[in-house]
This record gives sequence, C-alpha cells and structure tokens, in this order.
Amino acid sequence: MPRKIIIDTDPGVDDTMAIFFALKSTALDVIGLTTIFGNVHTNLASTNAVRLMEIAGTPQIPVATGVANPLTRAFGGPVPFVHGDDGQGNIHLPPPQGKPIEQSAPEFIIEQIMSHPGEITLVPVGPLTNIAMALRLEPRITENVHEVVIMGGNALVPGNASPAAEANIRNDPEAADLVFGAPWPVTMVGLDVTHKVHMAPQHLDHYKTINNALAQHVARIVPHYRNYFESSFDMEGIYVHDSSAIAYVLDPTLFKTEQWPLRVETEGFSRGKTWPSIGKRTRPDWENRPLVNVCVEVDSPRLIDMEIAAMEA
Amino acid sequence: MPRKIIIDTDPGVDDTMAIFFALKSTALDVIGLTTIFGNVHTNLASTNAVRLMEIAGTPQIPVATGVANPLTRAFGGPVPFVHGDDGQGNIHLPPPQGKPIEQSAPEFIIEQIMSHPGEITLVPVGPLTNIAMALRLEPRITENVHEVVIMGGNALVPGNASPAAEANIRNDPEAADLVFGAPWPVTMVGLDVTHKVHMAPQHLDHYKTINNALAQHVARIVPHYRNYFESSFDMEGIYVHDSSAIAYVLDPTLFKTEQWPLRVETEGFSRGKTWPSIGKRTRPDWENRPLVNVCVEVDSPRLIDMEIAAMEA
Amino acid sequence: MPRKIIIDTDPGVDDTMAIFFALKSTALDVIGLTTIFGNVHTNLASTNAVRLMEIAGTPQIPVATGVANPLTRAFGGPVPFVHGDDGQGNIHLPPPQGKPIEQSAPEFIIEQIMSHPGEITLVPVGPLTNIAMALRLEPRITENVHEVVIMGGNALVPGNASPAAEANIRNDPEAADLVFGAPWPVTMVGLDVTHKVHMAPQHLDHYKTINNALAQHVARIVPHYRNYFESSFDMEGIYVHDSSAIAYVLDPTLFKTEQWPLRVETEGFSRGKTWPSIGKRTRPDWENRPLVNVCVEVDSPRLIDMEIAAMEA
Amino acid sequence: MPRKIIIDTDPGVDDTMAIFFALKSTALDVIGLTTIFGNVHTNLASTNAVRLMEIAGTPQIPVATGVANPLTRAFGGPVPFVHGDDGQGNIHLPPPQGKPIEQSAPEFIIEQIMSHPGEITLVPVGPLTNIAMALRLEPRITENVHEVVIMGGNALVPGNASPAAEANIRNDPEAADLVFGAPWPVTMVGLDVTHKVHMAPQHLDHYKTINNALAQHVARIVPHYRNYFESSFDMEGIYVHDSSAIAYVLDPTLFKTEQWPLRVETEGFSRGKTWPSIGKRTRPDWENRPLVNVCVEVDSPRLIDMEIAAMEA
Repeated sequence: MPRKIIIDTDPGVDDTMAIFFALKSTALDVIGLTTIFGNVHTNLASTNAVRLMEIAGTPQIPVATGVANPLTRAFGGPVPFVHGDDGQGNIHLPPPQGKPIEQSAPEFIIEQIMSHPGEITLVPVGPLTNIAMALRLEPRITENVHEVVIMGGNALVPGNASPAAEANIRNDPEAADLVFGAPWPVTMVGLDVTHKVHMAPQHLDHYKTINNALAQHVARIVPHYRNYFESSFDMEGIYVHDSSAIAYVLDPTLFKTEQWPLRVETEGFSRGKTWPSIGKRTRPDWENRPLVNVCVEVDSPRLIDMEIAAMEA
Repeated sequence: MPRKIIIDTDPGVDDTMAIFFALKSTALDVIGLTTIFGNVHTNLASTNAVRLMEIAGTPQIPVATGVANPLTRAFGGPVPFVHGDDGQGNIHLPPPQGKPIEQSAPEFIIEQIMSHPGEITLVPVGPLTNIAMALRLEPRITENVHEVVIMGGNALVPGNASPAAEANIRNDPEAADLVFGAPWPVTMVGLDVTHKVHMAPQHLDHYKTINNALAQHVARIVPHYRNYFESSFDMEGIYVHDSSAIAYVLDPTLFKTEQWPLRVETEGFSRGKTWPSIGKRTRPDWENRPLVNVCVEVDSPRLIDMEIAAMEA
Repeated sequence: MPRKIIIDTDPGVDDTMAIFFALKSTALDVIGLTTIFGNVHTNLASTNAVRLMEIAGTPQIPVATGVANPLTRAFGGPVPFVHGDDGQGNIHLPPPQGKPIEQSAPEFIIEQIMSHPGEITLVPVGPLTNIAMALRLEPRITENVHEVVIMGGNALVPGNASPAAEANIRNDPEAADLVFGAPWPVTMVGLDVTHKVHMAPQHLDHYKTINNALAQHVARIVPHYRNYFESSFDMEGIYVHDSSAIAYVLDPTLFKTEQWPLRVETEGFSRGKTWPSIGKRTRPDWENRPLVNVCVEVDSPRLIDMEIAAMEA
Repeated sequence: MPRKIIIDTDPGVDDTMAIFFALKSTALDVIGLTTIFGNVHTNLASTNAVRLMEIAGTPQIPVATGVANPLTRAFGGPVPFVHGDDGQGNIHLPPPQGKPIEQSAPEFIIEQIMSHPGEITLVPVGPLTNIAMALRLEPRITENVHEVVIMGGNALVPGNASPAAEANIRNDPEAADLVFGAPWPVTMVGLDVTHKVHMAPQHLDHYKTINNALAQHVARIVPHYRNYFESSFDMEGIYVHDSSAIAYVLDPTLFKTEQWPLRVETEGFSRGKTWPSIGKRTRPDWENRPLVNVCVEVDSPRLIDMEIAAMEA
C-alpha cells in the first residue's frame, strides 16, 4: 500500500518538480497539498498548487491554504529572481478551474493526521509555519504522525539565505525551532545534502523528451530557475532541494544520517541557523531536545536517476 | 440588544470575578469562553471555565480550549501562590459535569467573529496566544470583530511580572506584538489603570452578603488571592485587573484614554514591556503601527460600584 | 576646600552651560574635562572643550580626549539639529590656541582618582564609554572615587532618543550597564528630573545681561538650542539636562531620590532603557546589583536660581 | 633581524607551549607578554607569565597585566579541568621572584606599536578584550601594527566552547567583532586548522628527553592537559591550538588561507560564532567589513616538526 503523504509547499520551480516526482511515484499516495509563503506569497502558492493538480490530472487532491506570514513577524517577501513572478518560471499560466478547500492548512494537517493515526508522512518543503501552528493547535499530532521529512536547514555547511542560514528555516526560525523540538520523528534534508545533489543540463534537457504533461510542465518552467543558478553561482544545472526530501521518503538508504539534538537560532545575524549539538557533552541550550535525523551524505547519481525514472513512468 | 462578548481567560480568581461580572451584566451576552495558560495550565483553565458556567447556571455557554504554550516557547508555569493550585483559591471543587467543546479556542474565535460580522467583542484577560493564532489562521477577523478589549500591559508604570513587564504580556510577548499590531480596534486596560482600581476589604467582605451563587463563589475563592496581596505588597484588599476590562466594555467613560502606536519588546530583560510611542516624532520601530487605545486614568470608585451593583442584580 | 570634579562631556550647548556653571561655583574645583562623542564627535568635543577653557580664562585646566565610539559598536553620529554643526549653536568659533593633553580620557580619569583617593567627583554628562573603559582598565577606581553623578537615563518616564531610552545612555548602553553595576556611589540625574527643570525664555534672555565672558558665550550659543525645543516640542525655553548634574553635586537637597538596583537594557528596541527594580521582591536580572541613587523629584525654581546666581558671581 | 612579537595570553598549558616555542625561535623577538582571563583569571595569568619568563631565563621580558573581564560582561570563570587550578597542570609552582610591570596590557600594546611603527606582530592566543580596549584607546594602532595573528574562532567547523563557538571568541564576542572589523591585517588561526594539528603521545613524551628548562617544564605540565583530551574526547595526544598561531608567524606557507569578511555573533546561543561571508554576494551585516585571512588547511606534520625542532635548538 502506498504511503500517504502531505506536501507543505510554496511552489516554486523545485517544489513543482518535487510534487510531480511524488505524484509519479507509485509508492506514494499524495493525499493533499498545504501551502505556505516562501518562494511566493501564500495565495499564489495555493493558486499554483491547484494549477499543478490540474496539469497532473489529479484535481481531486485537495489544496489547503496556509498562513500568510511567519509566526511572529511579517513575511519578508518572495524571490521572483529565483522562481519567477508567478513562481512558475514566468510562463504565466491561465487561472486554474478549481480552488483550494475551505479548511486552513494547519487544520487540514491536524485532521488528516488524527484521523489516520500512524499513517501520514508530512513533507514540508517551505517555511515551517503551518507545521508549528498545527503543533500548537493539536500537540497530539506528534504521537499520530508517521514521520516528518523536512527540506530545510544546514548543519555543517554555510547557508544560502545568509552566511548562516538556509532560506526555508530563515523564513521562520521560531516555527522551525518548535518543529525540531517536538517529540516526533523528524528528518532534516538540508543543504548538507541538497548542495551535493546536482542535476546537470543534460538531465534538465531530458525532461523535454519525456512524453507526459508533468515532465513537459517542468521543462517549461525550469529555464528561469536554471538561469538563476548560472548568474548567481556560475553554475551549470541546478541543486535538487525539494525533490531530495521526496527521495528520502522513497528510499532513506540514499542518505547517510546522523542523530543530533538540534536548535534553531532566532537571534542576531545567525537567525535561522540550525545548530546540531555534536559530541557526548550535554550543552545547556540543547538539553532535553529530541534527536533529529540529519542527512549528511547522499548518493546523488542514484537520487537523480530515481527522480528521472519516476518522471518517465 | 446586549453586546456579544467572548472572554479569553485563564481562571484564576480575578478572571472568575470578571466572568461573573460579565454574566450578571444585562448589557452583555457572553457567547463563549476560550481558555489559555497563565494563572493555571490551559487544561485546568478549561475545567475551571466549565465549572464556573455550571456554578452560574449557564452550562449552555460553550468553553473552547486554547493552546497550552506561548507561540514560540514553553509556558513558564502557573502561579499557585496567587490563585491557588486549583486556580480557585484552593477550595478544590469536584469535577464539573460538562466539558469543553471539541473546537479549539482559535477556531471558535474565528468562527464566531466571521459568522457575526461586526458584532463580537473579544475580551482577552490572559496571555494573547489564542488571539495571535486566530489572526494567523484567519486575518480577516480584524475586519469583522467589533472591538478587542485587553487586560494586560503597562504603558507608563512599572510591570508586575518583572520590573519591565505585566504578567499577561510577559507570558507571550510575541503574540501580544501581533495583536497590538493588527489593524483592528484594540483597547489596552493595563496596570496604568488596574493598579489604581482598589477593591477594599469591606467590598470583598460584602460579596458574602450577596445572595446568589456567583457572589457566594467569589466570596469562597477570594481569601487566598487577598492573602497574596497582603503578603507581597503589604496591601489590604486587591487590585481589580480582569474586571476592569469588563467595566471598559460596559462603560468606556470610566476611563481616560490615549491613542498611541504600541510595540511589545520581545528581547532582553525588557521582554514583555508594552512601549507606546508618545509625541509627534515618528519612531522607526513604531512606524506603520496602528493606534492602540490605551487606558491611562480611571474612575475607580465608580468602577467598583458598578461591579458590585451587577453582582447584586 | 572646594570639591574636585572631572566633567566628562560632549559639548554641546547644555554641556557648555553646565561646565560654566561648575567653573563659576566656588564650591567646585574643576580639575579637568574629558571628552566623548554624543552631541558631536569626540574630536570636536575636545576642540570645543579647549575653546571653552580659553573663553573662561582657565586654559590651564586640562582637556583629555576620550574614545571615539561606543564600547561595542560604531557611534551613530551627532545631532546638529540640536546643538549645531559645531556643537556651539552654529556660531563657528575660530580654532583654539591650545590643545588637549596627550593622555587619553580613561587614563586621565584613572590617574586623577588613584592619586587623590576619596577626593574626585566624576560628573559624566555624555555617553558613559570613557567611564566604562576606566573601570575595565583599573577596577580600583571604584574604591577611590568620591562619587559619580551622571546626567542620563530615565527610570519612570519615557525616553527622548527613543520611546524607551534617554540619549546619553542609548549612545552606549553596554557602557552604562557596567557603570551602574560597579560597586561605587552613583547618582542618576535623568529625565525623571531634568524634564521638570525648565529654563524659561526670560531666564535665557537674562544671560545676555550678565557681564562676563562665560554668560555672554552662553547667550550666543543658546538660540539654536532653543529653536530645537520650539520646533520639536512646541516649547518655550529649554529643559536643563547637564546643569542639573552640577546642581546635584552642589546641593543634593534640591532632589528627592530613591535607591534602586538598576539595569540597562542592551537588546531590542528597548536598548538604552534604564530599568530600576522597585519593590521588595528580588528580580533575577537585578540580583547582586548595587543600589543606584536615582533622582525622582526636583526643586526646579531653586535649581534655576542657583545656576543663574552662579553665573552672575 | 627577528620579528618583534607581543603574545597576549592566558597561560594555560598550550599557551606555555606556544610562548616557549616563540622564545626558542630565533626568527622571533618576544618583546613582551600581555595577560588576559580565559584559561585562568587575569591575575594568575600574569603570575604564570612572570614565572614562565623566569623558567625560560628571560626575566627581562616585560609582562603587562590585562583586563579582568570581557568588555561588557563578567568573566564566566576559568577551566581548571583543562589547565589545572594553577593553569600549569596542577604542578603548583612557588611564587615568582619578579612581577608584572605597572602599565596595563592595552597601554603596553599601544605604546609598543606606536613607538615601533610597522614592526610589531600581535599574537593574541586568548580572549580579545585587551586588543579591543587598545583599539578603542588608540585607533591608530591599526595603521602601525605589522600584523595580527589570532588563535581563535571557527569558520567552517563546529565550536568547542559551545556547538557554535570556539572558547577564546566565546569569552568575549563583542571584543572579537571589533578586532575582526578593524582595518588591519588579521589572520585567524582557528579550530578549522588547530583541530587538524595533532600532537601524538610520542611527541609529548619526546619533550621529556629534550635537555633544556623550557622543554622540561612543558613535560611537567602537559600530563594534566593530555588527560583532559583523553577523558573528554577519547583522544590520545592533544590538539595544538596556541602554538599554531606562532607557527603561522614563523611560516605562513604551512597554511592554506581564504580571505573573507567576518562577523562575530554576539546574540543567542550562537554567541561567539565567527561567521565568514563566503561567495560573491554582498550580505548586509557583512558590508564594509575588511577581509580576514582565515586559515582553512594546515600541514600538520611539518608544523609539529617545526615546533619540536625549535624546542630542541
């Protein structure tokens, strides 16, 4: 039986690739998308999520709109130079036919987890505000979720939103610190591995040749994203962020992991840094924190192959 | 037609007095209680709220349980030396017959406000976490609420939970800063006035002589609270915190108010201080903040008389 | 025998008035000026201090240049709209004949205090950086100073540099927290009293009629300062900040004081707020802090009379 | 002509090894030691420094006592489990004959740099408080120093005093941020390299066979230090922290370095982390910061050989 997953997402080009990767994986049953600010504003994230379900021919999968701002501050704004004004590589799609459900994202997450105890895998690939809200509204989700697999954070490598911090965590460090501190099984798929998963130009070009609507959509939206990597990092191809979290759900053996207590800095210019406490000494600020399963190494070629094979299926 | 109010509360002795004051005021229609941590843990707050509705003979009024911890941190713990281990002056009541509704406090608040546009007055007399959660889940409540009247904060006088901060705000400064920063009509009934509303021993003794279940309950629970004021402040009688917010709803002319933009400090040992920006100069951190209606003076004798008259009704 | 005082100053119009008030007071022996950034940059403060000694006919009084920036940050810059580009009401004096001594301000302060044990009164009327540096370089000055009388801070009233903080303390809160935390006798002459000492237009006009170089200089520089009060506060006349500290040294009975432990906030937008801990409860962040003598009331008319009488002497 | 160096130090076992390494290096002329808190309190650091000069037969080298506490806080206390109660491996030496000079460490540093323009290399191997004080007292030392080579910090690797921070920087992050932000040539020899320089048991045992007072003293004090590494890290031998800075002065080709702007976090639990800004994007908090020369790789065997060869000379 396929694993039930909810993807919490701010699509976003690589979110789109990750969502389609999940939809095309028979081992997964995407039971809903919840949306969040980040790559785009939350409203646009919802519109895009609905569009993506229609493109994929799965309009029955519900989209629940999440919160529009971080727990304690105002959202700093989207990144159109990365994902386009429309979050879809500036291809400017027509409005979708359908619309998000009435229920909010935190309420949808709670209802699904509580009504399918032990079955739901939560895969947040954006800022963690919805997840933190759900934790505050219904703490018992920690005992009823199957697993939480997060794209975000950086344990041993520099950040990308600042010298210290990765973008998803930086967008709501207070939420992230709640999520990594809750007593549930969390895996962090962060820059430590995603900066090692490189999808080369030939892989990206290959999407054009795959004869289904999902791959064709990816092929349309990816050039803008690719330009960003080229102009900002003098890099050919792209890093695979959000799809790496889907890959972890599909096959954790792709990754080497370490189990560390983890705190998220909320102060100073280190705001958003995910700090593991490594070594046997107990550190005051990390005391009584659960162990987080942190991905530190990855078999990049196998991961890329798995994603492309899924898209071709 | 009486005004519909929701009291968000952590009962608590003075919460109990305020709730009963509201119930006995014909100008008010208490359509629900929502509960929060503070004087006691949230669960006990709910149990107490249900008990109070049963004592008052209004078990049909719904009680919705709120969140158990502040937005971004763990709750520091209740204050049994003020309100008793049971939050009811250590009289240790039997369990109530009824129980809270299934809906969470933020969801109840949202539903009520959105289904009665312009009609609901929200009266939070504890930490503002539920209100902040509601704002994040459904920002449109700001346009649909009638008014928000908060017991909490200190604009021009020292704090009581620390030299800087009042207890309700100190318990969740991040939530308070969201609530005071939202575009809705907010009145702050803080220590600036509540430390000037003094209920003397003869007033408190008078409750014993009022022949109804509500006043009799207050008479039972108030001695423990009164001892706290005596031992901590060498003071006879009590300050009237939560009931002052009810009094404001009933008759704003009891108070002199000022309209100031207000920020809540979340850092350092000033954490929880409510800072108004006074004067014509625009201050960077207060820019684009709405004006809060801050109570700065109060007609204490008239307020006390009004509360006692209501209880005698 | 007159009391030996060192004035640590950033002249500044009201600094000038305070320095001249001290020079004209036979009960005081000004043994040196030390300079600091604040109203102007430190270098200009030194140039002005030397000028003032020449105008006063006391060029033998040494001026020692202090540090140019706060302990841990860069100086935010002077306030020409208050004191003029030249710190002297834009009268643009010619360069002085003399110059500051080679010794730095902290070293001068240390040498004087250590070589006159129990005799020196330190009167800082600007940011407290030099004093904090001296404390770090030679902690024994705390046992050898006679007294420290500071113009700065706000205990019970709003700030002037921000809603929270007074300008001198705001300019170096870390330094101020060291100074108020050191084990020596400190009096704080802050906005609690200086905003109650009002020098009216007729007083200011009277300076013109006093026939000595010091009063004449004050009469020349004060109009620019007076304009600032008029345009910013719709106020006629000026508040008497720095001279109030001199007045305290001359006659403490002008003031009502309270003895409180005091902390200076260094974080958030409360940065620079001087927080007393009032009441019998011991507060964690204020534990083991010495009592500071905080001026809370003042006999303003008598203070003004005393200053004008000194100038006329 | 040998290079003039001042070592700012908190001896400390590895400080002792570094000081003796420098003294035995004919390419260096140790013109003074300045002392600081850290491994021990400042007073004991001075006593130890004087003792070491007497053991080394160089009692003419001046020792100047530095400040006893960080710029803005109280020193958290020494680490006797690492260096012994006496900072010398608990061998409890008799009092020295001589004593420190009268001049304070910051004043000594300033005087030496200003009177030997371009000649002095400053080698701080403890917290940077003295250096920051010197910068504030006399900013022109930045133009007159030859070079600053610091043992401290961690750019790309975890900390040792906390998950985030290295011990010297953690002991005074505010001071460190001033030092790394000043316009002078600074090299950081931090945990990125010192955790790769391993002195094995056979090297440490070899000290016993070297027939001079300096090596013999090291052989006496090192066992306690070695025990610390064994019990805390299950490690045989020791990391070479302070001597690595001396090695850099002697031969920079031992190291691979990168040039990055660097900030030191002073807030949150990241306090003391040295953050480089890597990559071509300009980051707001790192704007206008000078490039720091950060050691990232080291030829450990050659470094160890160089130190032992010097000791045998």
